[in-house]
Parts: sequence; C-alpha cells; structure tokens
Amino acid sequence: MTASHNTAKTQFVEVAGVKYAYRKFGSGDKTPIVFLQHFRGGLDNWDPKVTDGLAKDHPVILFNNAGVASSGGEPADTVSGMAKHVVTFINALGLKQVDLLGFSLGGFVAQQVVLENPGLVRRVVLAGTGPQGGEDMDAFTPKVAEHATQETPVIENFLYLFFSPSETSQGAGRAFWVRRHTRADQDVPSSMAAMHAQAAAIARWGEVPKTNRYGQLKKIKQPVLIVNGQNDIMLPSINSFILQQHIPNATLILYPDSGHGALFQYPELFVSHVRLFLEE
Amino acid sequence: MTASHNTAKTQFVEVAGVKYAYRKFGSGDKTPIVFLQHFRGGLDNWDPKVTDGLAKDHPVILFNNAGVASSGGEPADTVSGMAKHVVTFINALGLKQVDLLGFSLGGFVAQQVVLENPGLVRRVVLAGTGPQGGEDMDAFTPKVAEHATQETPVIENFLYLFFSPSETSQGAGRAFWVRRHTRADQDVPSSMAAMHAQAAAIARWGEVPKTNRYGQLKKIKQPVLIVNGQNDIMLPSINSFILQQHIPNATLILYPDSGHGALFQYPELFVSHVRLFLEE
Repeated sequence: MTASHNTAKTQFVEVAGVKYAYRKFGSGDKTPIVFLQHFRGGLDNWDPKVTDGLAKDHPVILFNNAGVASSGGEPADTVSGMAKHVVTFINALGLKQVDLLGFSLGGFVAQQVVLENPGLVRRVVLAGTGPQGGEDMDAFTPKVAEHATQETPVIENFLYLFFSPSETSQGAGRAFWVRRHTRADQDVPSSMAAMHAQAAAIARWGEVPKTNRYGQLKKIKQPVLIVNGQNDIMLPSINSFILQQHIPNATLILYPDSGHGALFQYPELFVSHVRLFLEE
Repeated sequence: MTASHNTAKTQFVEVAGVKYAYRKFGSGDKTPIVFLQHFRGGLDNWDPKVTDGLAKDHPVILFNNAGVASSGGEPADTVSGMAKHVVTFINALGLKQVDLLGFSLGGFVAQQVVLENPGLVRRVVLAGTGPQGGEDMDAFTPKVAEHATQETPVIENFLYLFFSPSETSQGAGRAFWVRRHTRADQDVPSSMAAMHAQAAAIARWGEVPKTNRYGQLKKIKQPVLIVNGQNDIMLPSINSFILQQHIPNATLILYPDSGHGALFQYPELFVSHVRLFLEE
C-alpha cells in the first residue's frame, strides 16, 4: 500500500446485503488499525495528520458503520448492533487480528467489540469516550445537543464541541478544519436517519445500570490507551479517568487546554503517544 | 559532562553554612533538569534508567535538600522551607532557568518553587504527587505509615509502597531495586530527624484549606507533565487528575497496574514521555 489519507480510494465490501465503505492505506506488515468514528462522522471526519502519521508504519483502515455516510444498510440503534457490523466488516476483509482506534461513539463500539470478540483485537485506543453508564453520559447538555444536531454542521459547531474556548485551542480547531477538507472527493454526510439511530444508541449506552456499574470493564484484557482533552463537554473527561481505573491494563493521557477533539488539537503528539503504545 | 548516574561524583556547594549535596551529569546544552526526591530519599533513590535516559540529551542534576542524606544543614519542616533551599541551590550553581522533576514530596516542593519563583522554571514534571490539601492527603493509612517509617527501610517496604501487588509490578520493583544499587559508593541514608521534619511538612501540605482549595494551581503558567500509577496508595491517583484539571497547561499520564513508583516500573516509557514533553 502506498496511498495516503487524501489519495486512498473509497472501497466497498458487501456482506449480507450491506455495502460497507472503507479506505485502506499505510505501510508495513504490522497489525492494521481500524478507525471507528464519532457521532455522525464519516471517512473524512478524521485528521489527515493522525491517519497519515500512523500510516507511516501501520496499515490504516477507515470505516463507516452500516447506514453511516457512504455505507449502505440500515444504521444500528444500539452500540452492540454497531459492534456486530464492525466484526462482520473485519471478517469480510479477511483480517485475523486488528488494533482499534475508537473516537467518542466509536470508543463505545470499540469497547463492545473487544468484550464480544476478544480474540479479534490486539490493542485498543479510546479517544474522547467513556464507559457504559459513565458520569453525566445519559444526555448532552442543551447547548451541546443544539450544536451536535444541526442538519448541516458547520465549523462553528465543531469549534464549540471539540475544542476549548481558548484562542490556542480554537486556532488549532480551525487548522484541523482546513486539513480535514484537503481531500478533493469528500465522503458524503450522514443522513438524519443515521443521526437519530446513533443518538438512540448513545442515550442507551449512557444509562447508569442498576447493578455492577463499570463491572464489564475488568473483562477487557487487552492493553488500552485512553486519551482525552482536559475538559470534554460532550463526554466529561472524568469518564476517561474512570475507564483507566477499571480496565486492568490501561494507560490514560489527558491533554491540556482542550476538549473532545484533543486528538485533532495535538495530532503529532497524539501520533507519538499512540506509536509508543502500539509498539511497547 | 560525560559522567553517568553511577560515575558522577557527589559534589557539594555551600551557601550560608549549608553544604548541599548534588550530582551533575548528562550531555547537551538544553535546560538542566533538577530532580527533587521523595520522603526520606537521597541521591541513590532514583532509577539509573530514568536519570541516564534523560541525561542522553539533557544535563541532569540530582539534589539532596538541606539536612537530607549527604546534605548538611537542618532539614526544613515545611514545603515552603524546602522550596527556599532549592532556589538557593539553583542560584548557587549559577543556573538562570531549570526544568524540575519532582517525585512525591519532591513534587510538592516543585509546585512551591514554581509558585514562588516562576521565572526560574521552564517546565515541570510531577510524579506520584498531589496538590496542597488534596484528596486523602492529610495522613497515610496505618499500613502505609508503618512501611514508610521503618528506621532502616528494606526492599519489602518499597515493593509495598511503590508498586502494585501484581506479579508483574512486584517483579519490576525488584528489578528497580537491583538497578538502584548498582552504584558502588551509595549516598548515606537520611537521618530520623530528617524523616520527622519531612513528615511534618507532608502533614501540613495535606491539610485541606478552609477556602480556595486548589486555587493556587491556576497560577502555575509553565507547561506541566503529571504522571502516576493507576493506584497510588501513598498519594491517591485521583490527586494527579485534580492537578491536571486545575493547572492551566498540564498533561496527565497514568500508567497501568502500578503505584506511587510508576516512573521506576516503566522507566523507558516514562523517559520517552518526558522527552516528548520537554521538547514539544
């Protein structure tokens, strides 16, 4: 493989009537990293600095879940349903084992994939995410909900949701926005139906269970790297600490003056940290 | 400089009747890193893998506060008193600016130095430490106190206090113990008088203030890297999260399956993380 974030063709693999969209690029024969995206996001909501940075010495696979952006099929309305699509997709590509990089909702899905199919996953990176039934994860605040559910999201929505209010963070957000649009043939936006299905999945995942809160996390035996910004207003940063405290082999990194999209604010540093983690 | 952890001579600089013991080694013309040690620790309680690892491209200075181990003078019984000795020492060496790496009590002292002398410090690494008046920092548990106050501490005390109970962590602790004894002419142990003075300083630092808890932390403008183990039984790990939440420009890293001495359990990874931080 020699393609990059901006040149890798969008490919499709069809299983049981669902055409999954993905892009594959990168170098080397290491375990491929499968990227699982956030609420409403598609193939072009990643930061080329992150994907190309990791693709220098890892195969990288960007993926749209069923019914999301350019993927066909019906969008799942549970995290478990989304996890099943991920496993179907990985199997369809003939991959025996992968690393997962899940951001936000993608981090919920990554946890569920590992819990249901531990043999399929070598290592996991969880960015801007939280455990099932975490702290203040049952609903977005009204202002977050307003920014997150616009029919056509614009840069101001991402600057509010993903970055801190500081000038530095907002500037980093604008630079990310430019990078993320450098690819000519951008992925199509997700439908409103996909948004509603994902919102239902997020709300269910956020419900605090009556018993055994966080009890599932100790079953995750893989090495896990958890990263977030100092103040994530979508999935409060304390949830990253909680994940680290309950997953037996987990490292936590929280970045300064940043929010949900910290991985896009510090892309080079994030790539350095992920590489150290993947290659330990 | 070409010496290393095991070959650098112990040197002394005298100011106002106090002979401060230190060792200096490492390469390059970057900002020197001054190491501030934990409760009762001296020049040989550091891990050669950490000191030599950082000395590859930074001047490294190990330091005994007044009255501690091979340093002369009376041991201070407040963190502020200890911070004044650090500043006196740095000035005596003619250094205009330093990086600080403070571990445990040394992390309290590093915070105080930065607050009182911001111009003297470029960047700060805080390991296994907490803020003034942090969570459960007013007293050690009885079992921690027992292990921490033995007249002649032995390996079992360090394995209990600094590492997690897992086989992996205990094994890493024993390997650290071997490394830390490879130097032939070891520093003398701290006196019981030094222990009592330091214990008094720690107890005062741990008192929860009646107002403005954590308010001082926002005055720290330097970039700060905070690291700890997943479950520090001496200074609970939540305090590392609290530090990161309140210091404006702070990164947090928590390591898996580890305790207070996580920097000695993962010395190579810690050195990689510190270097990324110092060179950002």
